[in-house]
Amino acid sequence: MTVTDGRLARGERTRAAVLDTAVALAAEVGLDGLSLGQLAQRLGVSKSGLFAHWRDKEQLQLATLERAREQFLAQVVSPALAHPRGVRRLWALHACRLDFYARSQPDCCFFVKVSFEYADQPGPVRERIIELIGDQRTLYAGLVTRAIECGELRPVDPQLLAFEMDSVGLATVYDSRLFDPHAVHARARRAVLDRLRPLCTDPTLLPEE
Amino acid sequence: MTVTDGRLARGERTRAAVLDTAVALAAEVGLDGLSLGQLAQRLGVSKSGLFAHWRDKEQLQLATLERAREQFLAQVVSPALAHPRGVRRLWALHACRLDFYARSQPDCCFFVKVSFEYADQPGPVRERIIELIGDQRTLYAGLVTRAIECGELRPVDPQLLAFEMDSVGLATVYDSRLFDPHAVHARARRAVLDRLRPLCTDPTLLPEE
Repeated sequence: MTVTDGRLARGERTRAAVLDTAVALAAEVGLDGLSLGQLAQRLGVSKSGLFAHWRDKEQLQLATLERAREQFLAQVVSPALAHPRGVRRLWALHACRLDFYARSQPDCCFFVKVSFEYADQPGPVRERIIELIGDQRTLYAGLVTRAIECGELRPVDPQLLAFEMDSVGLATVYDSRLFDPHAVHARARRAVLDRLRPLCTDPTLLPEE
Repeated sequence: MTVTDGRLARGERTRAAVLDTAVALAAEVGLDGLSLGQLAQRLGVSKSGLFAHWRDKEQLQLATLERAREQFLAQVVSPALAHPRGVRRLWALHACRLDFYARSQPDCCFFVKVSFEYADQPGPVRERIIELIGDQRTLYAGLVTRAIECGELRPVDPQLLAFEMDSVGLATVYDSRLFDPHAVHARARRAVLDRLRPLCTDPTLLPEE
């Protein structure tokens, strides 16, 4: 039993490290390009060692999606939620997302890459991607609703503002791979600041630039 | 000479038809997945017949890009430019683009697909994609500038508004492949109407909804 427990603990640590590599790899080649064989090669381990964690490619893809979600929650959502509720928290979600993109190029493209890749491939992977993108939109809309409720934001359609803010995030990923990333990030920041400022009952809650 | 001219004329007609198929194929599999062999198979012709038009894959890719540009100009830009200059023409560019997407799913994804695909593949194809995306942004910004000049739009950063409108177009392609396309298009319409209306000196120039 002791040996088995030791193996499990070691296994869990390995699992997280392997999935970080899988997220980075899928951001490059897509989830469909992700195979146990290719992942083993990237990690310099044997393919049989990975079979202990995921019995087939689809299980690996689903686990990779969950890991990418954990990364987004830890690096974007949690830092944003540390800000005071209301407009500042809504703005922080956008700002933290831009910071995440600036830090993690080209890995940042994971969700953009896979949501486009799986748009026409029915199955459990596509279903999970739709859920995760939907969760992200719900998070944005929820923060908009809260900012309205606490009187910091004038009434606006939360779903619509969520769509607009998410559009700017998506375009940031696209544009910064084709044009000067510094200029793109500055524009993505200003676009949302200019959108939020006239909606704010107290514009000083937002940064100047 | 007559025979040669006849061949050329037939060749040009064939060329345009072949490139329409190439655009549709690349929207599915990407420009990198586009080969003379695969295109010949899709068209039910011999590969050697296609060699007369393009001597290698890169020439085919560049010709496919030009054809996609022609389609966008004919189906989006020209109908938009038929509207009166100013705010109505600016709005028409967005509305015609949404109409084009609604008509041509999944072909609509050509530029979205290939600009993402070639973001990290240096070479003439990437350079041309960057030029074409840049041209599109310049077109938006130019229409914004003209609308300001003719007094229909309050002063605003043309590049920034161009980026915002283009972001909504991009998100429309993404979202309509994952969620209900009707709801997505309605939202993409309202997002830009809501953005333009407060900037308009005469809001009746824009449609009600």
